[in-house]
Amino acid sequence: MADKIFRVNMTDLTTTIEDVPADWAGHGGRGLTSTIVAAEVEPTCHPLGANNKLVIAPGLLSGTVAANSGRLSIGAKSPLTGTIKEANAGGTAAQFLARAGVKAVIIEGLPKEDKWYNLALTPEGVTINEETALIGKGNFETIKAIEESREEKLAVITLGPAGEMRMASANISIKDPDGGLRSSGRGGLGAVMGSKKIKYITIDPKDGKVAVAKPEEFKQANRTFAKALVDHPVSQALGEYGTNVLVNIINESGGLPSKNFTQGQFEGHESISGETMADTITQRGGKKKHNCHPGCVIQCSQVYNDANGKKLTSGFEYESIWAMGADCCVDNLDHIAEADQIMDDLGIDSIETSVAMAVAMEAGVLPFGDGEGICRILREDVAKGTGLGRIIGNGTGSVGRSFGITRVPVVKNQGIPAYDPRAIKGIGITYATSTQGADHTMGYTIATNILNVGGKVDPLTNEGQVELSRNLQIATAAIDSTGMCLFIAFAALDDEKCLPALIDLINARFDLTLTGDDVVNLGQYILKTERAFNIAAGFTAADDRLPEFFYTEPLPPHNVVFDFSGEEIDTFWDF
Amino acid sequence: MADKIFRVNMTDLTTTIEDVPADWAGHGGRGLTSTIVAAEVEPTCHPLGANNKLVIAPGLLSGTVAANSGRLSIGAKSPLTGTIKEANAGGTAAQFLARAGVKAVIIEGLPKEDKWYNLALTPEGVTINEETALIGKGNFETIKAIEESREEKLAVITLGPAGEMRMASANISIKDPDGGLRSSGRGGLGAVMGSKKIKYITIDPKDGKVAVAKPEEFKQANRTFAKALVDHPVSQALGEYGTNVLVNIINESGGLPSKNFTQGQFEGHESISGETMADTITQRGGKKKHNCHPGCVIQCSQVYNDANGKKLTSGFEYESIWAMGADCCVDNLDHIAEADQIMDDLGIDSIETSVAMAVAMEAGVLPFGDGEGICRILREDVAKGTGLGRIIGNGTGSVGRSFGITRVPVVKNQGIPAYDPRAIKGIGITYATSTQGADHTMGYTIATNILNVGGKVDPLTNEGQVELSRNLQIATAAIDSTGMCLFIAFAALDDEKCLPALIDLINARFDLTLTGDDVVNLGQYILKTERAFNIAAGFTAADDRLPEFFYTEPLPPHNVVFDFSGEEIDTFWDF
Repeated sequence: MADKIFRVNMTDLTTTIEDVPADWAGHGGRGLTSTIVAAEVEPTCHPLGANNKLVIAPGLLSGTVAANSGRLSIGAKSPLTGTIKEANAGGTAAQFLARAGVKAVIIEGLPKEDKWYNLALTPEGVTINEETALIGKGNFETIKAIEESREEKLAVITLGPAGEMRMASANISIKDPDGGLRSSGRGGLGAVMGSKKIKYITIDPKDGKVAVAKPEEFKQANRTFAKALVDHPVSQALGEYGTNVLVNIINESGGLPSKNFTQGQFEGHESISGETMADTITQRGGKKKHNCHPGCVIQCSQVYNDANGKKLTSGFEYESIWAMGADCCVDNLDHIAEADQIMDDLGIDSIETSVAMAVAMEAGVLPFGDGEGICRILREDVAKGTGLGRIIGNGTGSVGRSFGITRVPVVKNQGIPAYDPRAIKGIGITYATSTQGADHTMGYTIATNILNVGGKVDPLTNEGQVELSRNLQIATAAIDSTGMCLFIAFAALDDEKCLPALIDLINARFDLTLTGDDVVNLGQYILKTERAFNIAAGFTAADDRLPEFFYTEPLPPHNVVFDFSGEEIDTFWDF
Repeated sequence: MADKIFRVNMTDLTTTIEDVPADWAGHGGRGLTSTIVAAEVEPTCHPLGANNKLVIAPGLLSGTVAANSGRLSIGAKSPLTGTIKEANAGGTAAQFLARAGVKAVIIEGLPKEDKWYNLALTPEGVTINEETALIGKGNFETIKAIEESREEKLAVITLGPAGEMRMASANISIKDPDGGLRSSGRGGLGAVMGSKKIKYITIDPKDGKVAVAKPEEFKQANRTFAKALVDHPVSQALGEYGTNVLVNIINESGGLPSKNFTQGQFEGHESISGETMADTITQRGGKKKHNCHPGCVIQCSQVYNDANGKKLTSGFEYESIWAMGADCCVDNLDHIAEADQIMDDLGIDSIETSVAMAVAMEAGVLPFGDGEGICRILREDVAKGTGLGRIIGNGTGSVGRSFGITRVPVVKNQGIPAYDPRAIKGIGITYATSTQGADHTMGYTIATNILNVGGKVDPLTNEGQVELSRNLQIATAAIDSTGMCLFIAFAALDDEKCLPALIDLINARFDLTLTGDDVVNLGQYILKTERAFNIAAGFTAADDRLPEFFYTEPLPPHNVVFDFSGEEIDTFWDF
C-alpha cells in the first residue's frame, strides 16, 4: 500500500488520510516538509497563528534497514526566524512513521477551546485525545508516563514546557531507543506545536513494514554504504569521542567562538574537550557510544554520568558544550551536562539558549563562567516563564534586543553556532545564505575548511568559500530528504563508493533509476523552494548578511574580520 | 551668519562646526534629519552601534515668531522599527537651536569608556562634559536640577532611565516653557541617545536671533496664517478639550480600538472622554489650555491635577488616554494620568508602552482594566529594568513575541495607535505604508475620514483611501520640515488662505519664491528618500502590510475587516 498523508485539523479536531499528490511523491524528509509548507502555508502568516502548519516527514529511506536512515524532518514557518524551517533529529519516530505508512503528517489550525491534546497515530489514522495529566510536565516525565501506561512499543514526539509557553527557542523532542531524547532543535518548532496545543504524539506502526521494491539490490547497496561510513576516520573519531571531538580541533584553528564571540580560543578548552569527556565517561561508567536510532553505524551519542555514576545527560553534543562552555566561559563539564539535561527536559534548543546566555552575560545578567548561574536561570526563570525566562527562552536576538546589546550573533534572528565566521570563512557564507537562519548543518564547510574532508579550502581566505558552501548546501538539502544523518557526508565526500550506494538504496527502495544529477537537482529544487517562500515572506539580500560586528571587530588570535562584500555573498544564489 | 551643522563625535569626544552642504541648505526639520540620516547612516547598521547617528534639527521656521513653528525633529535609524525615523515634538529646544544658529546637530560614534556625558550647546559650539550626578534620575528631577544649577534660561533635551537602559520604546524629551515635558516619542530614539551615553543636552542661544529676510512680508503672512489657525473649528475644539476631544468622536465611529483591538467601542468611554477631562480639570483647578512652545495659538495641551489640586500630569494626550484607557479597558482617568506622568518621567513612549500593556493583558500578565497594575509595573518593572520591564519597555512587538501572542497590533514592529484600521480604512493605509512603522501622524486620514476636514472619504469603504493617505503623507512630510505643528493641517485643508500664507512665511524668511508645487515636491522627495533607506535596510512590500488578525477578525460594532489587497496598498507608491 502506498504511503499516505495523515492530516490533522486542530480547529475542528478532525483527521483524514489522503493520497499523496503526484508532485510530492518523489519527496521525503526536508524536501517534503519544505514542499508542503511552501504549497500550503501563506508566507506572511503569523507563525503561531491558525494559518501555519506543522509538517512531519520521515526520510525516503526511513524505516528500512539502510544504515543511519532514521532522521525525522519537521517543518513549518519558524517563529524564531520568520523563514521556512526544517529541523531533523534521530530517535525512533521516523522509522515508526514510515512503517505505519505515513508519507507526512500535516497538522493545521488552532483549537477553539483552551484545552491541550495528544495525538495517537497508527496505520489506521490519527486520534485526537484531550490531555490534562502531563501538561506542564518535563519531557522526561512525559516519556516515562507514556512508556509506563502502554504495553505497545511506541515512538513518541513530545513537547516540553518551553513549547507549551510558545517560546521561540522551544524544540520538539523525539524519544530515542532507550528513553533518551533527540531534538528537532532549531527555529522554535516547539512553539508551533505548542500553539496547536499538542503535548505529544505517539506512533504505533502495529506490524507495519516498509516495502522495498528490490530487496537484493537494496541489501547489497546497504553493505557498501555502511562500510564506507564505518571506514571513514571522521566516523571513527565521532564514535570514539562524540561530536565533542571538535572542541580541541576548532580551538586550535582559532575559530572557537568564546566569551560571546570576542575570542577565537577558550582558555578552558581542555576541561570541556571530547578527550576529557571520553575519559570522564569511562571513569564514571557512562557510555562512550550510543545510537540515537536503530541502524546507526557511527554512534556519536553517549551517556554522561555524574560523579556518583548516575546518568546526568545523553546526546551531549559539541554545539551545546561549545555554547555553554567556550561561549559562556564555563569550564566545568558537569555544570554544562546539568544545563544540557535541564534544557532537554524543558524542550528548548540548547544552541539557541546557550548563545542567548552568553549575550545575557555580556548584558550583565550573570557573570561569564557562571555555570551554576545558567542552571539556576534555566530552572527558576526559563522553566517558570518569568520575564527574564521568556527573554532568554525567545533566543539570542531577544536577549540582544531586550538589553540593547549590539554584539548579538544571529542571522535571521537565529543564534550562530560553534564556528566563528571570521576565522572559518566558508561557514560564514552558510550562515548568511542559509534559507533557515544561521545553521552549521545547512552546509557544513568545517568538513573542508578544517577537517580536510572533500579536499581543502583554506579557512582564512575568501577564495572558494562561496562555491564550497553552495555545493554543500545543495548536497545537504538532498541528504536531508533521505532520512540519512548528515554525518554520512564525510564518507560521501571522500569515498567514491558512498554516494552511488546511497543512490542505489533509493533506487532499490522505489524501483527508480536516479543518478547523481538527480540528487543535485533535488538539492537545488529544495533550496530554491525554500528561498522563494522566504522572499514571499519579505526577506531580501539584506537579510543574507552577518551581524555588523563580524565586519568591524577583529577576532583573536588571527585578528581577522569577515570581509565578504554583499555582492560576493549574493553570488551564492547563481545556480 | 548662515546656520551651521554642529557635529559631535562621541568616540573621540570632539565637536566641530561645519558649513551646510548645498544639498541640505533648503531643508529643515524632518526633511533635513531624513536627508542627513540617508546620506550618512549605513541602512543595515545596528541602531545602537557606532554607525548610527542621532540628528536633531529645528524646522525651517523655528525660532521666528511664526505661529506654531516650534517643533523639533529628531532622526536616526530606529531601534524599534529598523527603519529611518523622525519624531518631532514641541518644547523650547527648536526655537533655541534656531536662535543659536544651528541647522542641525549630528551626534555620531559611541564613547570608548563606560561613562555618561551631557552636551552644552551655545552659538560658539558644543562642549562635552562627563555627567554623573543625574544618571539614573527621572526626567523631572533632571530638568529641575539643571534649572536650579544655571542662571541662564536654557532649553533642555533630556533622556530618562528608559533611554539609559536602551529600551526600544525610550523617547527623548524636550522641556516646555513651564518645566513640563514634550516628547519625541516614537521609534525608540531615546535608546539611540542612550547608546551614545548622553543624559541631556542644554541649549543656550545667548542673544542669538533668527534673521528674517523680508520682515514686513513675514509679519503680514503670519497674521493671515495665525488667523486661519485660530478660526478653524477643530483648532477651537482642541483648545477647549485638548486632543482628548477625540475619545467620544472615535468611539462613536466604532473605530476606537478597545481591549487589545478586539472591539471598536469602549464601554467606559465617557469616563475618559475629553469632556469629562475638561470638567475635571476645571473642578480641580488645572489648566485647560497650555502651549507646548511659545507662539502656539491652538494650545491643545493642559495641566491635569489630582483630587487634591496638585499637578498630576501635563500634555495629557488622546493617544495615551486611549491606549491606557480603551485599549487596556481602564476607565479611571486618575490612574491613566498617573501612568502618563510615570512614563514621562521614565522617558518612554506612552503610546508604545500602553499598547504593549494591552498585549501583556491578553497574555495574562495583569487583568484588563487594572490601571493600578499598570502603574505598579511601570514603577517596579520598567523603571527597574526587570525582565518583564524590559519586555514591556521594548514595545508591543516585544511583548507579543515574548508571550507568543498572535493579536499584536504593530506595523514594522511599532505599535498601532488610536484608530482601528478596520473601521477607519484610510488610516490603515497610512499605518501600512508609512516609512516609519504604524504612526497616525504620518498621514492623518482621520481628518477626512471622521472630522470632515478637507472633504469627506467614507471611513468604511476602500474607495479613495490610498489617494487620501498619499496626499496627506506627502503634505505631512513637508509640514514636518517647517517646524510647524501638525495641527495646522486642519486649517490648511479647509482654509484656502492658510497654505499660501505658510509658503509666504518660508519665502519671507529665506527670500525665496517657492510655490505650492515646491511643497508637494518636497514632501515627495522626503518620502522617497526615507523609503530608499528602508529598502536598502531590507524592507519590502511584505512589510507594508497590517498584521494578519486585521484581515481575519471582524471588529464590532461594524463587524468589518481590513480588506485591501497587497497590490492595492502598493499603489500608494505610484508617484
